[in-house]
Amino acid sequence: MYSSWRSGRFRSAGGCTTRRLLFPLLVAPARGLGTMSAKQPVVTFVTGNAKKLEEVRAILGSQALPVEIVSQKVDLPELQGEPEDISREKCKLAAAEVGGPVMVEDTSLCFNALGGLPGPYIKWFLEKTGHEGLNNLLAAYADKSAYAQCVFGFCAGPGHPPITFDGRTAGQIVPARGPTDFGWDPVFQPDGYSETYAEMDKAEKNKISHRYRALAQLKEYLMQNGADLPMPAKLSKTK
Amino acid sequence: MYSSWRSGRFRSAGGCTTRRLLFPLLVAPARGLGTMSAKQPVVTFVTGNAKKLEEVRAILGSQALPVEIVSQKVDLPELQGEPEDISREKCKLAAAEVGGPVMVEDTSLCFNALGGLPGPYIKWFLEKTGHEGLNNLLAAYADKSAYAQCVFGFCAGPGHPPITFDGRTAGQIVPARGPTDFGWDPVFQPDGYSETYAEMDKAEKNKISHRYRALAQLKEYLMQNGADLPMPAKLSKTK
Repeated sequence: MYSSWRSGRFRSAGGCTTRRLLFPLLVAPARGLGTMSAKQPVVTFVTGNAKKLEEVRAILGSQALPVEIVSQKVDLPELQGEPEDISREKCKLAAAEVGGPVMVEDTSLCFNALGGLPGPYIKWFLEKTGHEGLNNLLAAYADKSAYAQCVFGFCAGPGHPPITFDGRTAGQIVPARGPTDFGWDPVFQPDGYSETYAEMDKAEKNKISHRYRALAQLKEYLMQNGADLPMPAKLSKTK
Repeated sequence: MYSSWRSGRFRSAGGCTTRRLLFPLLVAPARGLGTMSAKQPVVTFVTGNAKKLEEVRAILGSQALPVEIVSQKVDLPELQGEPEDISREKCKLAAAEVGGPVMVEDTSLCFNALGGLPGPYIKWFLEKTGHEGLNNLLAAYADKSAYAQCVFGFCAGPGHPPITFDGRTAGQIVPARGPTDFGWDPVFQPDGYSETYAEMDKAEKNKISHRYRALAQLKEYLMQNGADLPMPAKLSKTK
C-alpha cells in the first residue's frame, strides 16, 4: 500500500530486506519537528546534522502534513556508490534500526566533466584539498558546469522498498566567494545567479536549492501517502 | 591471546563488536587455497575477485603457514573513509558474517597533491573518466607523485579487534602505457622503474607491489599468531 505514488519522479527499487535482528529500539527522538501526538503516523528523519534538520523543519514543518516528523541520530555506515543507490541502502539500514518509517538524506556535488564525481565523495575532497582544490580538479577542462544533488530516501519500514527523491540544482564551479563556514557553498554558483550559494540570502537559496527540490517531492509523497503509514502503536507506549 | 603481535607495523583499534544476530553461517568456502584438513585453524579470505585470490594464493599458499586459508564471497557494503578505517569496519562485518577468523583486502590509489585522494574511490574515477581523466585530476599540480596502497584487515572472529596491514608502493601518475585490461595499472609507474605496473612482468610487479607488501606483513603475523587461533570444530563437521 506504500507503493501507490503517482509521480514518475519517485523511484523505488529492490526489497527493503533486513538481515539484522530488529531490536525494539523504535523511535527515541533526539529532537522532534513537532509535538508528538501519536494521533498520526510517525516518520523518523535519520540525521545528526543540526543544519539539515533546520532546513527540513523550514520546508516540511507544516501542520498540513498527515504525518508526524521526528528526528533521530542513528550510526549508519557511509557507503560508496551512485547517490540513489547509497540513499536506498542507507534507507534499508535505517528502517531496520528504527523499526518503522524513516527518511534519510544524502548530498553530492557533481562535476559534469568528471562524469558526476566527486559526487557523494565531495566532503573528502573538500576536507583534503579545500575550495581551491575543488576548482583544480577541473583545471584540464573548459566545462566547469556542475550540479548540486540531494537525494532523500524514504522507507515505510523493514521489508518495504525504499523510494528516492532526487533534487538537483545546476550551476558552475567557481573560485570561492562568500562566507566559508558551510561546506562547498562558496564554490557553487547556481545558473541564473551572479552569487554563489554562500553569498546568497538564505531564504533565496532555499527557494532553488537541491535540498529544497528533493524535499518538495518528498513532501508531496507524504501528503499523498502518509496517512496510510502504520500508526505508532509501540511508540505511544514510550511516551 | 590474538593481540600478541610483535611488529609496530600491525595496527589494531576498537573492539570487533557485532550488532547483528550471528546466524550459524560459518565457513562455506567457494574455493580453498589448500586442502582443508581441519587440523589447523581456518582463516577465511573474504573476496569474490579471482585475480586477488590468485595473487594471495601465490604469496600465502605455503605449506609452512600454521593456518588453512579458504575463500568465501560475502556481500559486504562498500564504505567511505580512510583506507585503514574502511578495512577495519569491513573486517568486523566479515567476522560477524563468517563467525570466525577472516581477512579482507582494500586497494587505493592515492595522489599526494590531492591529500591521498581519490584513494579508496579510485575505481569510480577510473570508471567515469578513464585513464586520461586520472591524469587530468593532477593538471593543476606539478607534483604527479602517488602511492598504491593495499590494506589487509584481519579479525580473529566476532568480538576481536581488527588488525590492519598497510602495504604501499610509491610512484608517479603518467599517461597510460601498456595493456589496459587491469584497472589503473597503466597510469602508475613505480619509483625506480621506467615501466608502468601494466607494462611490467607480473612476477617482477609482484615483488614490489602494494598488495605483496601488505600480504608479507599479514603472512608474518599469521606465522607468529596463527597457531593460537581457534580450531575449526564446527567447520570439520561440514566435511
